[in-house]
Amino acid sequence: MVHAALHGTSAGAVNGSPAKAARLREIVLFVWALVATAAVIVLAVWAQHGHHSDNRSPDSPRPRPHGKRNLIFMVSDGMGPASLSLTRSFRQLVDDIPINDTLALDRHFWGTSRTRSSNSLVTDSAAGATAFSCGRKSYNGAISMLPDFTPCGTVLEAAKRAGYHTGLVVTTDITDATPACFASHVNMRTQMDEIALHEIGEGPLGHVVDLMLGGGRCHFLANSSEGSCREDDVDVAGIASKKGWTYVDSRAGFDSLKLGKDVKLPTLGLFARNDIPFELDRRNMADVYPSLSEMATTALAALEQATRDTEEGFFLMIEGSRIDHAGHFNDPAAQVREVLEFDKTFQIVLDFLEKSDTEGVLVSTSDHETGGLSTALQEPGHLPVYNWYPSFLANAKSSAEYLAYLLRQHVASKEASLSKESLKEWINTNLVIEGLGITDALDGELSLVAANAADATTAFAAIISLRAHVGWSSHGHSAVDVNIYSSGGPAAEALHGNRENTDVGKFLRDYLGLDLDDITAELNEKLIPTTAINNQAMPMAAAEVEGSRPGWTGA
Amino acid sequence: MVHAALHGTSAGAVNGSPAKAARLREIVLFVWALVATAAVIVLAVWAQHGHHSDNRSPDSPRPRPHGKRNLIFMVSDGMGPASLSLTRSFRQLVDDIPINDTLALDRHFWGTSRTRSSNSLVTDSAAGATAFSCGRKSYNGAISMLPDFTPCGTVLEAAKRAGYHTGLVVTTDITDATPACFASHVNMRTQMDEIALHEIGEGPLGHVVDLMLGGGRCHFLANSSEGSCREDDVDVAGIASKKGWTYVDSRAGFDSLKLGKDVKLPTLGLFARNDIPFELDRRNMADVYPSLSEMATTALAALEQATRDTEEGFFLMIEGSRIDHAGHFNDPAAQVREVLEFDKTFQIVLDFLEKSDTEGVLVSTSDHETGGLSTALQEPGHLPVYNWYPSFLANAKSSAEYLAYLLRQHVASKEASLSKESLKEWINTNLVIEGLGITDALDGELSLVAANAADATTAFAAIISLRAHVGWSSHGHSAVDVNIYSSGGPAAEALHGNRENTDVGKFLRDYLGLDLDDITAELNEKLIPTTAINNQAMPMAAAEVEGSRPGWTGA
Repeated sequence: MVHAALHGTSAGAVNGSPAKAARLREIVLFVWALVATAAVIVLAVWAQHGHHSDNRSPDSPRPRPHGKRNLIFMVSDGMGPASLSLTRSFRQLVDDIPINDTLALDRHFWGTSRTRSSNSLVTDSAAGATAFSCGRKSYNGAISMLPDFTPCGTVLEAAKRAGYHTGLVVTTDITDATPACFASHVNMRTQMDEIALHEIGEGPLGHVVDLMLGGGRCHFLANSSEGSCREDDVDVAGIASKKGWTYVDSRAGFDSLKLGKDVKLPTLGLFARNDIPFELDRRNMADVYPSLSEMATTALAALEQATRDTEEGFFLMIEGSRIDHAGHFNDPAAQVREVLEFDKTFQIVLDFLEKSDTEGVLVSTSDHETGGLSTALQEPGHLPVYNWYPSFLANAKSSAEYLAYLLRQHVASKEASLSKESLKEWINTNLVIEGLGITDALDGELSLVAANAADATTAFAAIISLRAHVGWSSHGHSAVDVNIYSSGGPAAEALHGNRENTDVGKFLRDYLGLDLDDITAELNEKLIPTTAINNQAMPMAAAEVEGSRPGWTGA
Repeated sequence: MVHAALHGTSAGAVNGSPAKAARLREIVLFVWALVATAAVIVLAVWAQHGHHSDNRSPDSPRPRPHGKRNLIFMVSDGMGPASLSLTRSFRQLVDDIPINDTLALDRHFWGTSRTRSSNSLVTDSAAGATAFSCGRKSYNGAISMLPDFTPCGTVLEAAKRAGYHTGLVVTTDITDATPACFASHVNMRTQMDEIALHEIGEGPLGHVVDLMLGGGRCHFLANSSEGSCREDDVDVAGIASKKGWTYVDSRAGFDSLKLGKDVKLPTLGLFARNDIPFELDRRNMADVYPSLSEMATTALAALEQATRDTEEGFFLMIEGSRIDHAGHFNDPAAQVREVLEFDKTFQIVLDFLEKSDTEGVLVSTSDHETGGLSTALQEPGHLPVYNWYPSFLANAKSSAEYLAYLLRQHVASKEASLSKESLKEWINTNLVIEGLGITDALDGELSLVAANAADATTAFAAIISLRAHVGWSSHGHSAVDVNIYSSGGPAAEALHGNRENTDVGKFLRDYLGLDLDDITAELNEKLIPTTAINNQAMPMAAAEVEGSRPGWTGA
C-alpha cells in the first residue's frame, strides 16, 4: 500500500523533472506528517484536559479567562431536595403531563452542596450567602464578614473592579441577607439601614452594583416618610437619585423599563414595601407587582445592552427569595408556585445564554433547606400511607400568609361585633373553603385559626399540609445538602459531585478570573472606622429574628 | 524549516545512492504521516465519545462490552439525602475530625434518582428494586412483576445466563423485597415462602444465584422445625443442600468461609432468624452475627476466586438493608451506624475494584427515603433553633429496637410483681440512662414507654430524636429524590444528573451488555402455571405490611 501510494504520487509528476517531483512529494509528505502530528498533540492535550476536569479541586488556582464572559448565579433560598419532588409531581398533576416529566432544573442537575456555617451545623442565609460571595465559611448572621468580624471581598465587588457590570434581582427586601452579602459588609444581617447605604454606593468601596430589582423599599425611605422602616431619617432613595441612580418604585415604574430595553444604569427598582407577594398571590395582583421572571428578563436585557461594547461582561445574582419563606410558614401550596417561578426563570436564563454571542454560564444552588420538608406525612393515630396528594396544593387559590392578612383585616374592621362562632364560620366560608379550597376543615382547626387571628399563617398552612400529606419538622432551617444546577460546560466541571458551599463561591471567583484578596485588603483598610460604631456582634440572634417572620403586611 | 529538515534527511543518506535515499525518505515520511493521521482519527473519535457521554440517553442501545467485567450494585435501602448530613456531622464529632471531612460516599457522589412507582408517588422497596432489577416501573409490592402481573427478566438472571457469577448480600431477610427482586418473581413481596424457593433455584429459571449471605433463616426451614416462619412444611435449606448448596447458619459457619477464601459455590449463609441486628447492637454481639462489611468482603473474595479463570466476571448486589428500618423506627442513633457501616462497605468495594485486574464498576443508590428525616426539629412551644445535636446519638449504646426487646423480656419475666411506677424507674435506670445515654427523661416520656411495653421502639426513638433535634414526618417512606454514587469512569457517565430509578436498572443491564427481553420471554412461558395458584393481587397492602415492622425478636 505504501508503494502504491508513492507510485501514485510519482505518476502525478510526469510533466516535471523526476528530481523536482521527488522533492515535491517529500514536501507534501512532510507537511502532511507535520500537520497530523500537530493535530495529535492538540487533540491529546484537549482530551487530557477534558478527561481530568472532574478531578480538579476548586482550591487550585485557575488562569484568568480569555475573552468576554457573563456569569449568572441563581439562589433558590431555602429549597431543599424534597421541594423538587413536591413541585415536579405537583406540576405533572396540574398540567396533566406524564409521570416522567421533569423540571428545567432537573434536566440541569449538577451536584450537591454541604451547607454548614462556621458556627452551626444548620446555616442561616447570611452565612450561606457569605460562602457564595466570598467563598469563605462564616457565622450565622454574617454579611460578608469573617468569624473575626473582619470583612471579606465579594465576587460582585471584584467583578465591578475588573470592569464587569453587576446586578441583583430578588423577591424579598433587596437588603435581605442573600443580596446584602454581595454588596455590603456588616456584622449582623439585621443592620439593614446600613446595608441599604452600602448597596447604593455609600459603603467602603463606593459604587459596586449597577442594577437592583426587588422589594424592601422601606429601608430606602427616611423615617419621616410614610412607608419607611428605617430607624434614622436618611433618605437613601434620595441620595441614590442625587448620585445618578434611576429610581422606580411601582409597577408603572417597572413597566417604564420595558423589560430591560429602556434601562439607564445604575437603576434601583423597589416594587414592594418589604416582600413581593408569593407568586400564588402575586398572579392576582400582577398590576401591582412584577414577577421574578419579569425582573430577571429585565436585568438580563439591561446588562446585555450595557455591556454590548465593553470588554468585560456582567455578573448577575437572581434569587428566588421566598421559597424560603414558604418553608418557614410550612406552606406547600405557596412553595410549589415559588419553585415553578424559579424554574421558569432558570429556563429564561438558559435561553438567554443560548442566544447570547458572549460566553456565559449559569450556576444555581440553595443556601440551605427550610422547614424540614418531607413529601410524606403520617397522620396522628394512623399507619403510614405511601402517598402524598398534590391535588390539595392545586386547589389553593391563596397562600396561608395572604389568608392570614385577610383575616387580620376582617378582625380589625369587625372586632366589636364578632362572636367566636361567627368568626369561625366566616373563616371557614371565606378563607378555608374559598382560599384554601378545603371543604372539610375540622372544628379544632378553625378554632386554632380563630385563636391566632393576629397571625394565623401557620394555622392555615397546617390545614393544607395535613390533607396533602406534606410533612415539616421545623419553622426554621435544616442541614440537608442542597442541589447545584448549571447550564454546564467544561468550566462548570469543578462543581460536579458533592461540594462545600464555599466551593460555589470559589467557582464564581474563578469563572470571572477575580482576585478577592485585593478587595479584602482594601475593605480592611476602609471599613473599620465606619462599622465600629454600628455593629453588634451577636451571631446567634439572627436565627431567631429570621425564624419568626412577621408575614406579609399588604402593599 | 521544511527545507532544512529535508536537507538534514538528505545529509543522513550520504552513504547510499541518492535515489534509494530519496525513496527511503519518502517511505519514512509517509509512514510518519500515516501513523499521525491514524492517531488523529483515534483521538478524535475517543474525544468525541467522551465529550458527548453526558448526553447519552440510557434508553439508547449500547454495544456489548468487550472483555471481562465485574459489576457491584449497592443499595442503601431507605437512605435519603438528609441521612448523609446526619451521618457526616455525627462522624466528625465522634472521630473528632475537621468539619469539612466527608464520607467515602460523598467523595463519589454521582447524581440523583427519582423514585416514584407506577401506582404511587411514594414507592416501596419492591417497586424500587424492580426498577433496578428489570429497569421497569411497577406497582408497590411487585417482586419483578409488571403492572399487568407478568414477570420481567432481571439483570441477575440475564447475567447468570450470559456466564457471569452472581451474588446477593443483605442485612435483613434474604427473601425481603430488594434481594427478592433480583432472583424471584411473585405478585406480592409478602410471598416470602415462594421467594425462598425461587432463590435457591426452584423458580421458573432454575439456578440463577451463586451466593447469598444475610438474614431470614426462618423462611428456609419447614414449619415443623424450630425457628421456622413458613406456612408450609417445605425444608428449603434441605432442598438447597440436596441441590449442592453449601448451607451455613451461624457465626461459626460464617467463619468457616474464611472471608471468602474458602467458599464453594453455590453457598447460602443465613446468620439470623430474620434481621441481623442493627450495627449499633451487633458490635456487642459480634460473636453471633457477621457485619455487612464482613459479608461483602467474603462475597467479593469468593466471586473473584470463582471467576478467576472464566470469561465473564460477576454481578454482586450488596444492600445496607436496615438503614430503612432505622428510618421506619425513627431511630437516628441506629441509622448513623447503619450508614457508617454502609460507607465502610462502599470503601471496601472501591478498594477491591482498585486492586482487581478485571475491569469493574460500583454503582450505589437508594430505593427511596424512609421516615421523612430532617436534621432539624422545632420543639413544641419553642422558636426554631438553627442546630442539631449529634452528641446525643453518640451517647446511645443500643438501638431503640433492642431496648424495646429488653423491655419485653423484663416485663415477661416480672409481669406479676410490677407496679407502674417501679416499671418506669426500671426503664429509666436500665434502658434510658444506660442504653440511650439520656439522663433527663421526662415523666411523660417514661410513661409512654411503659404504656407501650409490648413494643416501645418508637417511644425510645422519640426520646433521642427530640434531644438530638432530629425530625421525622412519618414511620413510612417519602418521595424525595435519592442519591446515586459510583466508582466512576466513562461507562458510568450515563448515570450523571437527575435520573429515573429505572435508568439505574438500564445501566446495570447495559454495563454487562445483557438482553433482559429474552429472559422476560422465557419467564412468561414458564412462570404462569406456578404463580396462578399462590399469588394474590393486592398491590397497596404491602405498604401497611412494611409500615408496621414487628421489631427485632432476638437471635
